Amino acid sequence: MNERKEPTYLFTDEQVAEKSAIARNFLDTRTRLNQNVDKADNFLVKRFYNIDHNTYLEGALPSKYKELMGLVASACLRCDDCINYHIIQSYRLGVTRAQHEEAINVALVVGGSIVIPHLRRGYELLAELYG
Amino acid sequence: MNERKEPTYLFTDEQVAEKSAIARNFLDTRTRLNQNVDKADNFLVKRFYNIDHNTYLEGALPSKYKELMGLVASACLRCDDCINYHIIQSYRLGVTRAQHEEAINVALVVGGSIVIPHLRRGYELLAELYG
Amino acid sequence: MNERKEPTYLFTDEQVAEKSAIARNFLDTRTRLNQNVDKADNFLVKRFYNIDHNTYLEGALPSKYKELMGLVASACLRCDDCINYHIIQSYRLGVTRAQHEEAINVALVVGGSIVIPHLRRGYELLAELYG
Amino acid sequence: MNERKEPTYLFTDEQVAEKSAIARNFLDTRTRLNQNVDKADNFLVKRFYNIDHNTYLEGALPSKYKELMGLVASACLRCDDCINYHIIQSYRLGVTRAQHEEAINVALVVGGSIVIPHLRRGYELLAELYG
Amino acid sequence: MNERKEPTYLFTDEQVAEKSAIARNFLDTRTRLNQNVDKADNFLVKRFYNIDHNTYLEGALPSKYKELMGLVASACLRCDDCINYHIIQSYRLGVTRAQHEEAINVALVVGGSIVIPHLRRGYELLAELYG
Amino acid sequence: MNERKEPTYLFTDEQVAEKSAIARNFLDTRTRLNQNVDKADNFLVKRFYNIDHNTYLEGALPSKYKELMGLVASACLRCDDCINYHIIQSYRLGVTRAQHEEAINVALVVGGSIVIPHLRRGYELLAELYG
Repeated sequence: MNERKEPTYLFTDEQVAEKSAIARNFLDTRTRLNQNVDKADNFLVKRFYNIDHNTYLEGALPSKYKELMGLVASACLRCDDCINYHIIQSYRLGVTRAQHEEAINVALVVGGSIVIPHLRRGYELLAELYG
Repeated sequence: MNERKEPTYLFTDEQVAEKSAIARNFLDTRTRLNQNVDKADNFLVKRFYNIDHNTYLEGALPSKYKELMGLVASACLRCDDCINYHIIQSYRLGVTRAQHEEAINVALVVGGSIVIPHLRRGYELLAELYG
Repeated sequence: MNERKEPTYLFTDEQVAEKSAIARNFLDTRTRLNQNVDKADNFLVKRFYNIDHNTYLEGALPSKYKELMGLVASACLRCDDCINYHIIQSYRLGVTRAQHEEAINVALVVGGSIVIPHLRRGYELLAELYG
Repeated sequence: MNERKEPTYLFTDEQVAEKSAIARNFLDTRTRLNQNVDKADNFLVKRFYNIDHNTYLEGALPSKYKELMGLVASACLRCDDCINYHIIQSYRLGVTRAQHEEAINVALVVGGSIVIPHLRRGYELLAELYG
Repeated sequence: MNERKEPTYLFTDEQVAEKSAIARNFLDTRTRLNQNVDKADNFLVKRFYNIDHNTYLEGALPSKYKELMGLVASACLRCDDCINYHIIQSYRLGVTRAQHEEAINVALVVGGSIVIPHLRRGYELLAELYG
Repeated sequence: MNERKEPTYLFTDEQVAEKSAIARNFLDTRTRLNQNVDKADNFLVKRFYNIDHNTYLEGALPSKYKELMGLVASACLRCDDCINYHIIQSYRLGVTRAQHEEAINVALVVGGSIVIPHLRRGYELLAELYG
């Protein structure tokens, strides 16, 4: 088993939220709704969240590339919340705008034009983050 | 625009096919069917193949990580042919087995247990490639 | 052929709407948009709505479990409107919160983390319904 | 309501099967499995099959274009059996090879490279049909 | 290769926007977000947009039927933005309301009840366009 | 937290395999491929398998209904292996043929005609199991 450890983030969620209204809105809504999920204290949901967290830790692949893989998967499966989440996470890990665009291109080509509305919204977030 | 260039492969398709019967069968069938597509000489199909090729070139992200992103997308969208293709391509670029497994884990967690039958078949290919 | 019959609801839509602003908003929008569909009077749409209605009647399986199956399918295919609809329907048939959570867990595990944003919103509706 | 009527086919299933081993294999398997479904005599399945049949009748849109729409939907949702079915049906209605390719291009662009393995297999059927 | 040429539109985007608030809102948002994408000047995104444009030109199949195929694909893959786009494009090419409904029926039958929320919203746009 | 416990199966896998060649083939292939996955000993895969197992235990909902929910999800997401798995599991828990058909009807109506090829193959397994 590979050693797994928490990645080192260059920015906090709060710093991201200061740069981008889209990010702030997403993070605030997510926090509010997750409090509700936490209160339910469902055993399997907590376990799933735990696996989810472990998946993106530093390991044989650097966290930042796994976050970009999560971004590609999210864009192919067309989930705006998940796209926002993985853009923010990989941004916090130092991914550049050019790298974000290349990852989104993989999703565009694999997933097709149905990805375009999500690409447009993703680019809006990128514009806010990279200014 | 980032400079794009062809990646340097450590192995040829033929060398991969020598290690794995699954890879050989996939590559042979793909070649045979693509001859048919080539003969049709459809303008837009050729353009799409061209974009597809360009997406995975060396750029702001190394080719090998983009091939792994293609693998994650393929596993989430559950296409065995595409999974085989991206495992082979990333293997040719020097991706390790542990890295393959971590990429597939992203697909498993994002895409759920519906990915498991594809994971099983993907692991069979990994076993043949890494021996 | 199994006998099919209308299930007995414990609550009306109106009673559900009184408990939950999310439910009210969903039901009102659905009613408004369906009036438009009804006015179009499209033969195949009406037939499809009819089959759809018949699918969830009491039969070899109790309606409430089929509504939960509709919920699982909706969560896996990630449609918030459909999730709201089947949560409301199964709530009206006496499904408990713990049962709702277990059904959503099936969707989470089969469908993966891409289901999580829908789970969060679904839990918000559950919180309003079960108080 | 628009008048709906059965389309006029230029070829029978049998004539298609004589031109293409892929078509014959698909049609034979489908017939065999459908006998089993017919025997079950499930009320809702029969109703669904009936709606399905009615959807592609001549109407405000010619049947052949609706079969091509079924083909595009099938390719985007990546179901080889459904792709075979709609290629055969539209072929029987006089759709040309160039028209088939253009319809498949819509699916390729909307659905992305994940459609390519299905495109390859679809082109193999087209090659057998158009010789 | 078939000759491809731009289709002749009966209406401009502006004329469509004057008839429908839904269309205006969609078109305005799309324009605003696309400016952002254009500014990024990503080579592969531009190429993809170019292929996308070429796919729906007049050819072996009339543009209006290919726009309807795009509509069916969009409804099956459940993307409201894409549904709006293809309804507007095919409306601009003279497609009738009855034809729109038949295309949507193909999507409904192929894609199932999960398409219904999108059908409802699509019918709202149709009602605004055809009055 | 609800008490979870293993369900009581009426039949072993081996007894199911004796009744159905489809089931035997599926179970044998699955066992063979899982040995390979087990050998890899991937921490997150094992955790995911563990959650997956826990999801279908007896709880607020009886196991047999959760297996049917897994069947509906699998049919909507169109995975033959998963369909076979959940038909076998629910059969082992005493689900009747009529109940299987009603669950598949939910999947057919939610997921549309794209589910039909899977329904056909599912009915073939049902015919072997129920004789």
